[in-house]
Amino acid sequence: MAGFDTVSFLSDYGSADEFVGIVKAVVRDLAHHVVVLDLIHEIPPHDIRAGSLALARCIQYVPTGVILAVVDPGVGTDRRAVAIEVAGGAGVLVGPDNGLLAPAVAMAGGAERAVLLTNTALHLPAPGRTFAGRDVFAPVAAHLCNGIPLDQLGEAIDPALLMPGVIPVPRSEGDALVAEVLWVDRYGNAQLNVGPEDVDAFGDVLSLRWAESVRTAHRCATFDEIGSGAIGLVQDSYGLMAICLMRRSAAAELGLGAGDAVTLSPVDDGRAAPGATTTVAFRPR
Amino acid sequence: MAGFDTVSFLSDYGSADEFVGIVKAVVRDLAHHVVVLDLIHEIPPHDIRAGSLALARCIQYVPTGVILAVVDPGVGTDRRAVAIEVAGGAGVLVGPDNGLLAPAVAMAGGAERAVLLTNTALHLPAPGRTFAGRDVFAPVAAHLCNGIPLDQLGEAIDPALLMPGVIPVPRSEGDALVAEVLWVDRYGNAQLNVGPEDVDAFGDVLSLRWAESVRTAHRCATFDEIGSGAIGLVQDSYGLMAICLMRRSAAAELGLGAGDAVTLSPVDDGRAAPGATTTVAFRPR
Amino acid sequence: MAGFDTVSFLSDYGSADEFVGIVKAVVRDLAHHVVVLDLIHEIPPHDIRAGSLALARCIQYVPTGVILAVVDPGVGTDRRAVAIEVAGGAGVLVGPDNGLLAPAVAMAGGAERAVLLTNTALHLPAPGRTFAGRDVFAPVAAHLCNGIPLDQLGEAIDPALLMPGVIPVPRSEGDALVAEVLWVDRYGNAQLNVGPEDVDAFGDVLSLRWAESVRTAHRCATFDEIGSGAIGLVQDSYGLMAICLMRRSAAAELGLGAGDAVTLSPVDDGRAAPGATTTVAFRPR
Repeated sequence: MAGFDTVSFLSDYGSADEFVGIVKAVVRDLAHHVVVLDLIHEIPPHDIRAGSLALARCIQYVPTGVILAVVDPGVGTDRRAVAIEVAGGAGVLVGPDNGLLAPAVAMAGGAERAVLLTNTALHLPAPGRTFAGRDVFAPVAAHLCNGIPLDQLGEAIDPALLMPGVIPVPRSEGDALVAEVLWVDRYGNAQLNVGPEDVDAFGDVLSLRWAESVRTAHRCATFDEIGSGAIGLVQDSYGLMAICLMRRSAAAELGLGAGDAVTLSPVDDGRAAPGATTTVAFRPR
Repeated sequence: MAGFDTVSFLSDYGSADEFVGIVKAVVRDLAHHVVVLDLIHEIPPHDIRAGSLALARCIQYVPTGVILAVVDPGVGTDRRAVAIEVAGGAGVLVGPDNGLLAPAVAMAGGAERAVLLTNTALHLPAPGRTFAGRDVFAPVAAHLCNGIPLDQLGEAIDPALLMPGVIPVPRSEGDALVAEVLWVDRYGNAQLNVGPEDVDAFGDVLSLRWAESVRTAHRCATFDEIGSGAIGLVQDSYGLMAICLMRRSAAAELGLGAGDAVTLSPVDDGRAAPGATTTVAFRPR
Repeated sequence: MAGFDTVSFLSDYGSADEFVGIVKAVVRDLAHHVVVLDLIHEIPPHDIRAGSLALARCIQYVPTGVILAVVDPGVGTDRRAVAIEVAGGAGVLVGPDNGLLAPAVAMAGGAERAVLLTNTALHLPAPGRTFAGRDVFAPVAAHLCNGIPLDQLGEAIDPALLMPGVIPVPRSEGDALVAEVLWVDRYGNAQLNVGPEDVDAFGDVLSLRWAESVRTAHRCATFDEIGSGAIGLVQDSYGLMAICLMRRSAAAELGLGAGDAVTLSPVDDGRAAPGATTTVAFRPR
């Protein structure tokens, strides 16, 4: 039994409490040789969509091993806890079956085997049912690292019956494309669910519409090409197009948040020439 | 000399500065084989009570090794720095003697040996006296991991003379129980200092009173049993009763914070039947 | 080829996104034996000055190995990416050549060799040019740990041509000293760019002037010597003088922030006797 020596860990536990520390203590205690690699713990509480997108962004970079992911508003109910094998056994994802894991599983090539974590002999005894990260998922991750085979964790299930994830896809509307903000990062860049090929036909200058705003954006390769006062559409580090300002927060100044709809279209020359300003004011920071 | 290979680390250093990183650098430099396990660093600055409760929640899960805990408003004064051996030598707690360590020490079975960290040859030279985590506690933790015996750290003291911790206990008042909020977690659950056995006599529906509010709560096993609009009393993952809402913050919506008094009592049928609403409005989030 | 087994990591990536986790995943994947030591990731976005000062505070404590530092507003442009060898090869700093590394390099004794990271065969392929931490700096740090020699990373450059850092120095003005707040820490202590020897001539009681405020401060060795209601000038853990209150935030209450000018001078007995209060009110917290 080969086992693993890395657990990559994503959660909505935050840093204000000791939840992350205790999960890592449990793994350390049960599987002393394992390194726990913290991917992110500041997923907004209970935000399965945000967690699933972050995990999908990470998955191609995580080392061989266990991926432990916990955003689990239904903890303690009959929502299922699962382990999912991907990539010929190079990775096993452990977490709640609520859609959180699905986009990452898909990006890793799809689920090859899946089990429910019904073998409670491998869990920790617990006074309450509210901390499955500590009592169920952490010990299961540790046991996998110690070489316990997947099929000993519990009942095998058909991977096709796992809860699907929700990844929004853009839709065409006339000659426009209605996109969605997937993610706003620390720097205020607003990642859209469109790739460069989706907008190539629109040229280097595009019209963006969202809420009450209409603005012109330029395709740029780097943030510093955008120039001050202008809006850039930059291919980001995941290959998607992001709405950006130069060294300032596009999300804060343009009023964009995760989940917002943004319509991209070619510039209508009669309405907004490249570089022309509109009457729509920037919001104060 | 056996030594250890894990240092579990709790502090109020936060993440906005490099304090945590420098402490870990010192440990890495002096004891290269050691893994530092971060329990929590977002204890509110100088809040010894919050730190001592968090450490008590962690202690049963931390691996064999050194527990380094620093919430130290009196740093640099004559407050004592100590190392305390517990559990037959399986753990040594290192930190200031200001009550921070006491509840965890008690939960670990009590102090078996204690020393003052008076052997300054084992500390780092330091320009100022304000960063004992780096200059005193980290090198002492590293030396313990390297197998330096406890009695070489400094003068032995009677463990009975260590500063006691303050854990509030609930008190009876007629047929009611006056409890206290110990902790509000990231999800807004308000943990009380009462266990399930303390409130079993009150039945499955209870009256809660705090500040100007009177509300009815239901005993529930999971957050999702609470139902929307209702208040749940849930046995949490540490075995204590917590005031919770379903997928929302009880603390924010009910106006509860750490240290607040909450009176639990049987429901007076003439005043508030199970499920009945009161005139007390939820606060806006 | 010796290589290293520690990467000390500083950035402005924050914790709200998975940037730090992905950089660590890349290092783990390429150099399995390496421990990544997080120094600090909450440098304000794009704040090269704050990052360079934090790195300078850390440098004497980081273990032998690679120091990976990323505050990189010009990412993707032609700003240069560099690796700088210091201390007879005991350390190699990797990051953008924008002044971020310079103060730490100087504190480590100066740059002995430097190369541009132009050997793209050692980088990761990337869809966009906005995440050099993941695609350039992390793999380079991992390869250094694996024993790849510095001169294989790219073109050697004259260390004298590296971008200098900006460390403000105090200046004399009559018998006063005009200092600057370098850093405000979590506890609200405001570190100045002056050492004890710079203010010894002013005696134990000094006058502080900043913005519209004039206050008297006392030299103290610890926070608790300051006393309530008074202002202390304390030699901090880096050997510099800091403006402090006892167990409260000097920065918040006195209205001080990083970069603010503060003038120190001997107390003019006719204007403010030691301990005398002034008409300048504390700001509300």
